[in-house]
Amino acid sequence: MDSNNKSAQTTPVSAQAHVGDRIDVCVDAMGGDDAPSVVLEAIRQLCASTSDLDQQIKITLTGSAHDIEPIAARYPERVSAVPTTQVITMDEHPAHAVKQKRDSSIVVGCKLLSDGRADAFFSAGSTGAVMTAATLQIGRIRGIKRPAIATVIPALAGPVVLLDVGANADVEPEYLLQFAKMGSIYAHKVLAVAQPRIGLLNVGSEPSKGSRLVQAAYALIEQEVAGFIGNVEGNDIFSGRVDVIVADGFTGNIALKAMEGTVGTLFSELKRVFMSSPTNKLAAALIKRDLAVLKDHLDIEVIGGAPLLGLRHAVVIGHGSSSAFAILNGIRQTARASLSRLPQLIEEALFV
Amino acid sequence: MDSNNKSAQTTPVSAQAHVGDRIDVCVDAMGGDDAPSVVLEAIRQLCASTSDLDQQIKITLTGSAHDIEPIAARYPERVSAVPTTQVITMDEHPAHAVKQKRDSSIVVGCKLLSDGRADAFFSAGSTGAVMTAATLQIGRIRGIKRPAIATVIPALAGPVVLLDVGANADVEPEYLLQFAKMGSIYAHKVLAVAQPRIGLLNVGSEPSKGSRLVQAAYALIEQEVAGFIGNVEGNDIFSGRVDVIVADGFTGNIALKAMEGTVGTLFSELKRVFMSSPTNKLAAALIKRDLAVLKDHLDIEVIGGAPLLGLRHAVVIGHGSSSAFAILNGIRQTARASLSRLPQLIEEALFV
Repeated sequence: MDSNNKSAQTTPVSAQAHVGDRIDVCVDAMGGDDAPSVVLEAIRQLCASTSDLDQQIKITLTGSAHDIEPIAARYPERVSAVPTTQVITMDEHPAHAVKQKRDSSIVVGCKLLSDGRADAFFSAGSTGAVMTAATLQIGRIRGIKRPAIATVIPALAGPVVLLDVGANADVEPEYLLQFAKMGSIYAHKVLAVAQPRIGLLNVGSEPSKGSRLVQAAYALIEQEVAGFIGNVEGNDIFSGRVDVIVADGFTGNIALKAMEGTVGTLFSELKRVFMSSPTNKLAAALIKRDLAVLKDHLDIEVIGGAPLLGLRHAVVIGHGSSSAFAILNGIRQTARASLSRLPQLIEEALFV
Repeated sequence: MDSNNKSAQTTPVSAQAHVGDRIDVCVDAMGGDDAPSVVLEAIRQLCASTSDLDQQIKITLTGSAHDIEPIAARYPERVSAVPTTQVITMDEHPAHAVKQKRDSSIVVGCKLLSDGRADAFFSAGSTGAVMTAATLQIGRIRGIKRPAIATVIPALAGPVVLLDVGANADVEPEYLLQFAKMGSIYAHKVLAVAQPRIGLLNVGSEPSKGSRLVQAAYALIEQEVAGFIGNVEGNDIFSGRVDVIVADGFTGNIALKAMEGTVGTLFSELKRVFMSSPTNKLAAALIKRDLAVLKDHLDIEVIGGAPLLGLRHAVVIGHGSSSAFAILNGIRQTARASLSRLPQLIEEALFV
């Protein structure tokens, strides 16, 4: 943590590397449907954990004094409290809310990073508000046109990074090129994929397929990104033949929600079938445990959250419906992104 | 069938209505992975059927003389053969193939419609080739900017029409308005949805969400399309709250394939779990029948194929992997579209 860093917008990111250090993750105590209780429970579990990574993590909580001061008092070595008086809700307009609620847990949390008082930020609050506040307060990596929201899809053959899933509805080919580079670095450094295979989400495999946008992006990515395997289609997300899928934020968001909706529908229908007769209930009892394993495999919670890529510090957004377990995983993911010097590596990759 | 219609490009579509008539469906005998055998089997089943709709249908087959002449000889009252010498394969470039293979089953089939020798066309061959040949030979309905490929998703709460799923990667707001109108008419007239609810595929519910394209389209559709319920998201496709979902062909295609890939992955994983131990095999035996019902519910084959909307005649494209059952359903769907005067109704709707 570099407490002299008041000029976050101009200093090269690489000046802020802290490999092997204790990592200070700022956590929004008010973010998520079941906040603050699930957030506080996640912090308790973190402080009780004996794993190497968990013990490296120091927490700064933003949120109401009433909620966060007791836990900071209980774990004075591990947890600090920065009380805030406002909360941005899920249904507020992100840009307006960030502008007006300057003392909200999200805005203050992001400001702690630019002030050098924390290394990374995790929130299960409003995606739009975190995106807006982080971009304003933390700033983009030099050369990055647009930050992207990535998501890690727990495909059976291994995690797949899909980006952008919502930050940028209208993009240029060069943005997609940058998304490809950022996604590749994320897969390699945070998810430990040895040689990430990068695909461009499109409607067919040939380079001539798709919109003018993706045709132009194809040419750029092919030239500059190692591991580019060409176009992939909507059904490749679970196919295991690609590790990073590049899309504009409009298409990526719709593909992600189409998959989530399909998984949700199928499991709720399966449950209905299993409960629909005594015979089926018996079958359910026999197979329940193995089906739960399959469901866990496809459960977004295990992974934790969506990293924002392209910012000068590691920022991860958790699902609004996160449990304490999901939030704990999200905090770990945030710490790993920061420890792996993700922003610095992205900056370096842009200037190869 | 109007045998005097030599000027398909200029005559209003409404001159060609044939409600209650016998309907002549031209079928591409060479289209599909298992053609011609599955196509011929579908025709045999159709000729043996005693249902009112099936008995109304007369078939004209295009394809190799060797394959189609025997069945035409067997059912002389019901089946005619128009021998062709070329086949467009799935991996050919559609526009090139249509230009070069003038005596292919697809090009000749489409030409039969413009010559007034058939009312409607069904093929399980190359989507791109059928789209290109149909647009060139049959022509667009007056006022239609771009034809769209629709697909009927067998959601549990009822069929959902998603369009465009691949004809137009780059679109204008006005195209999306026309897709909304065409999809609504299709749902009402062919799928018998009393008052179709139309949604615009987007990344959030507010009108201000999404790309510049969908924001502009929202305003147009809201003004002109009855039953518009606003934006819907990727996870609404199975939600039952919308009957017609409007998208550009790039987004629609990717959403559709993402869902297909997810359903496929889940059922193959379920199968693996069910086969993985003697206990699980017992559970599978108990529940097999009910799961098959669920799988059938989600099986695209039951519906048949993807209608091309905006052309002067009914054209439906079947899946390449179609079985005889799927092809038979596709032929029925083609006949229903033509009997319901779909092209005429679309033309009328454009000039309200």
